[in-house]
Amino acid sequence: MWQENIGNPGRSTGAGANPRPPATQSGYAFANQIFGTGKLLPERMLEALGNPPVRIVLWDGEQANHRGDAPGASMIVRDRGALLKLISNPDFWFGEMYTDGRIDVEGDLVEFIETVYCCLPRGRQGTPGKKLLAPFGDAKRHSQPKARGNIRHHYDIGNQFYQLWLDKEMVYTCGYFPDRGMSLEDAQIAKLDHVCRKLRLQPGETVVEAGSGWGALALHMARHYGVTVKAYNISGEQIAFSRQRARDAGLDSQVEFIEDDYRNLRGRFDAFVSIGMLEHVGVENYPVLGALIERSLKDNGRGLIHSIGRDCPSSMNPWIERRIFPGAAPPSLSEMMQIFEPAGLSVLDVENLRLHYAKTLEHWLERYEKSADSVSAMFDPAFVRAWRLYLAGSLAAFRSGAMQLFQVSFARTGYNQIPWTRHHQYLS
Amino acid sequence: MWQENIGNPGRSTGAGANPRPPATQSGYAFANQIFGTGKLLPERMLEALGNPPVRIVLWDGEQANHRGDAPGASMIVRDRGALLKLISNPDFWFGEMYTDGRIDVEGDLVEFIETVYCCLPRGRQGTPGKKLLAPFGDAKRHSQPKARGNIRHHYDIGNQFYQLWLDKEMVYTCGYFPDRGMSLEDAQIAKLDHVCRKLRLQPGETVVEAGSGWGALALHMARHYGVTVKAYNISGEQIAFSRQRARDAGLDSQVEFIEDDYRNLRGRFDAFVSIGMLEHVGVENYPVLGALIERSLKDNGRGLIHSIGRDCPSSMNPWIERRIFPGAAPPSLSEMMQIFEPAGLSVLDVENLRLHYAKTLEHWLERYEKSADSVSAMFDPAFVRAWRLYLAGSLAAFRSGAMQLFQVSFARTGYNQIPWTRHHQYLS
Repeated sequence: MWQENIGNPGRSTGAGANPRPPATQSGYAFANQIFGTGKLLPERMLEALGNPPVRIVLWDGEQANHRGDAPGASMIVRDRGALLKLISNPDFWFGEMYTDGRIDVEGDLVEFIETVYCCLPRGRQGTPGKKLLAPFGDAKRHSQPKARGNIRHHYDIGNQFYQLWLDKEMVYTCGYFPDRGMSLEDAQIAKLDHVCRKLRLQPGETVVEAGSGWGALALHMARHYGVTVKAYNISGEQIAFSRQRARDAGLDSQVEFIEDDYRNLRGRFDAFVSIGMLEHVGVENYPVLGALIERSLKDNGRGLIHSIGRDCPSSMNPWIERRIFPGAAPPSLSEMMQIFEPAGLSVLDVENLRLHYAKTLEHWLERYEKSADSVSAMFDPAFVRAWRLYLAGSLAAFRSGAMQLFQVSFARTGYNQIPWTRHHQYLS
Repeated sequence: MWQENIGNPGRSTGAGANPRPPATQSGYAFANQIFGTGKLLPERMLEALGNPPVRIVLWDGEQANHRGDAPGASMIVRDRGALLKLISNPDFWFGEMYTDGRIDVEGDLVEFIETVYCCLPRGRQGTPGKKLLAPFGDAKRHSQPKARGNIRHHYDIGNQFYQLWLDKEMVYTCGYFPDRGMSLEDAQIAKLDHVCRKLRLQPGETVVEAGSGWGALALHMARHYGVTVKAYNISGEQIAFSRQRARDAGLDSQVEFIEDDYRNLRGRFDAFVSIGMLEHVGVENYPVLGALIERSLKDNGRGLIHSIGRDCPSSMNPWIERRIFPGAAPPSLSEMMQIFEPAGLSVLDVENLRLHYAKTLEHWLERYEKSADSVSAMFDPAFVRAWRLYLAGSLAAFRSGAMQLFQVSFARTGYNQIPWTRHHQYLS
């Protein structure tokens, strides 16, 4: 669950201007140098964003609306400091300033962000230098202790908070809406079944799950497909919640929730499944993950990885990475292949469920807004705004194609008892 | 349509022995040095191949059968020169010596090759040095004049020859067998429909096809889906044949067959499709192909590429590359992504049809053997043996997982009128 970078005013300014302030220069000085000062600032900002049909309104009433046609939404910048920060590094400061209420959006927040995304020149989402350095510099970002901290930062902020706006099964990944009008509850069950059908689970088989959330998939597989599950997760709150659910359902002899890193999983299984964990793994660890999967599968083993992804490799939005999801790194398909290709695993099927994530986020955002009072009672106003931006920005990212959702099914290279067609996924 | 490398006796000999003779040393001297001489040679050969349950029988009756259990097939080596050549560079010389009749296989040829494949240590299929150099050295291998020569080498050897063993629609790519017992003719029609359903063709739309073979798909799309097609191909014989078919069917106003390189295609279309051409393109040209596709699609455009591939990047078997398919280079999925990721195209769906290609090859090989007398009347005995080996080796490659078949569907990043599920592919 992420948001795309929403602006980076380097590209269209010509003359190879570096959009990020060098370390020796303040953001203010940099912005003044590149964009000038006074009323030109918002106009330059719009230009740099590819002239989206939005309006920028400043604290003193000054505004810019390049296209001339009626804009759908306006960004209100409440002080000069916020504007200069925004210009110096919009990828990070839009989120910070919005959270603090120093930037606001008048009109539909999702529509505003989506409009900006859709006008951005292609390839604007990444930070190439960071990307190039990633294979060398990122190893520690996903070490086991660091991964534990990353995950707790997001998932251990209170199950009650997530219960306010997730479905009743507590599935915090995209649903599957074969009928677009179906409820979120039904779509999450449909997703669990879609995954189980892809895995072709048989009663009595064994499954290992890496990153099990609040336990919905593990319990669903055990209850409806008669399999035994070992489920790994490093979020303490999620593990405690999941174990209680298993006991309540009388499934605790069939489903074991293990509070440990996926890298420590042991044993051999009929199926490997991971829904929404890969985003936290880091591309540099994909070959390790692939080797681990290969070791953990029996000869007839097959698997499925479900992950947010991208159409081309790029780095994470720095605000999301700092404030919402430390260590997050949704991969492109070529990056995902670094799991399978070195490991002797054969990709059988890839399905892109991007629009299903957009639909899921519509439901989450609607429920979140309906629960805004309850969230306000739990957290400070900045938290409420930050999570609103995160959900709205993620919805805009999936609608605009800045984010994708890949389900990848696989088996060992050369194993021939694989499905002959995908017709079995569409029964019932 | 290819064959995997079938052996490379370097790995298990220890001491980092280089399996290929250095340029300054003859293959004979090299083999003697590495393997010794006399009765040890076939045993070392088997060891190097991972001890597959096959027998090697020499011209003097000497033999090796490491496993001790009854082998399914035997390789007969008819003279010392053939053995030494085989040891010096089996990837190339097995094909050459088999073609010349100096090596033979007693028992089932497909089973023999498949048995050898399945015992090879993983990662033995490639030639890493060649692979590493490919991005720098291969540019000329797929230049337009070179590509023309490559294609004519294979496809212009006579339509009558292909008519002996292909289906009556002359489809020279894998069929689609939703029912494994269906005929080759039905499976090829099912494949054409599977592709058309994935493309969601609507009457009146325009399609561009890159690499149109003998015209079956272009004519099928026009006849059954009411679209207008521009089909590019650089094989003169195939173009002439396709044009005649279009005239005979009264479809020549709807389908234009253009004798030109895909790189010269012009115009904007509702759909792009390419079945079995990518194998000839060369990975170094994928970004160019991607940019070309992007330019050739309308905003609502979508496409499908169907290609033989691999589970990990590796170079082509040198015998196939020299004798059967010059310039051939089936990609891994990560390599295929070099088409889409830089071009702003979004991968929606990948389906692996490996077993369908194995089934298709069973049909082709059976028909080929039934037509052996007719082939012999057209070509010399070496040709008959070379094509037998090529078809049998390809069948073994798909059965063993050395080769894959990927169908990749795509659209522009962010285009939202894409299919919500894949259910439409499974309507009958």
